[in-house]
Amino acid sequence: MRKLIAGGLVAATALVGASGALAQQKDEDFVKYRQGAFQTIAWHFGPLAGMAKGDIDFDAELAQRNAERLAQLASMPWEGFEGGPHDAGDGHTHAKEAIWEEMDKFEGGAEKFQQEVDKLAEVAQQGELGPLRQQVGAVGDTCKKCHDNFKED
Amino acid sequence: MRKLIAGGLVAATALVGASGALAQQKDEDFVKYRQGAFQTIAWHFGPLAGMAKGDIDFDAELAQRNAERLAQLASMPWEGFEGGPHDAGDGHTHAKEAIWEEMDKFEGGAEKFQQEVDKLAEVAQQGELGPLRQQVGAVGDTCKKCHDNFKED
Repeated sequence: MRKLIAGGLVAATALVGASGALAQQKDEDFVKYRQGAFQTIAWHFGPLAGMAKGDIDFDAELAQRNAERLAQLASMPWEGFEGGPHDAGDGHTHAKEAIWEEMDKFEGGAEKFQQEVDKLAEVAQQGELGPLRQQVGAVGDTCKKCHDNFKED
Repeated sequence: MRKLIAGGLVAATALVGASGALAQQKDEDFVKYRQGAFQTIAWHFGPLAGMAKGDIDFDAELAQRNAERLAQLASMPWEGFEGGPHDAGDGHTHAKEAIWEEMDKFEGGAEKFQQEVDKLAEVAQQGELGPLRQQVGAVGDTCKKCHDNFKED
């Protein structure tokens, strides 16, 4: 059994980089993580925005699943900023300096986003396009507000 | 109110690309999404592997939070493969052709991963390093198995 565990741990370690990297995350890891988390959020928001705009057919089941996932994902990206590096060491980032200069405002925006996607997940359970459309708009507004303030184009 | 909604939808659309892109996801979007989802998984697994290996101090609360998030994330990456492109059009991918050649096996591996992270989330609630360490090993094994079969180095 011990050998099995050890094997799994060797595998686990290989997956997340060399042993030292586990204890000390590299700047690059922070940037990759927060970009990956936003990418995952955008993927799930896309079809909801498409349904709200009428670009794709309303699919109540997909809307509910994606809204639920968004409510789970909404809390995730921020730890890639707080206490993290401003860029990956090579200047590669879309994050504005304003994030660290106005962390309270940034965190407030993250909280507002969480509130609106939580409401989206509730609304999506109704299975009706009208209320969903309205709440997708409310979520989109929180995204845009933060991007305007804190994200480079 | 209508104006507010419309504004939000314009914002929503801008966030996920041009209007047409909502209805039809580009090859690049699939690749970015699945890589982003795995990045998000790796971020949360890292500290658990670190604790299991003894590289970082055991933190029961963080372990529980990350394991819970992993259980949520584990179902997400796969839709970036099924029905999706093999690469981003420029050959950029770590995905082996075997994924599409052996989709049943690939999906079986994804299911096994979900089962093991679900168990990890349960085990993490005990707040003890011993059982956590063992289950981190079991999760790591499912990661490694799939990577060996389906992921280019």
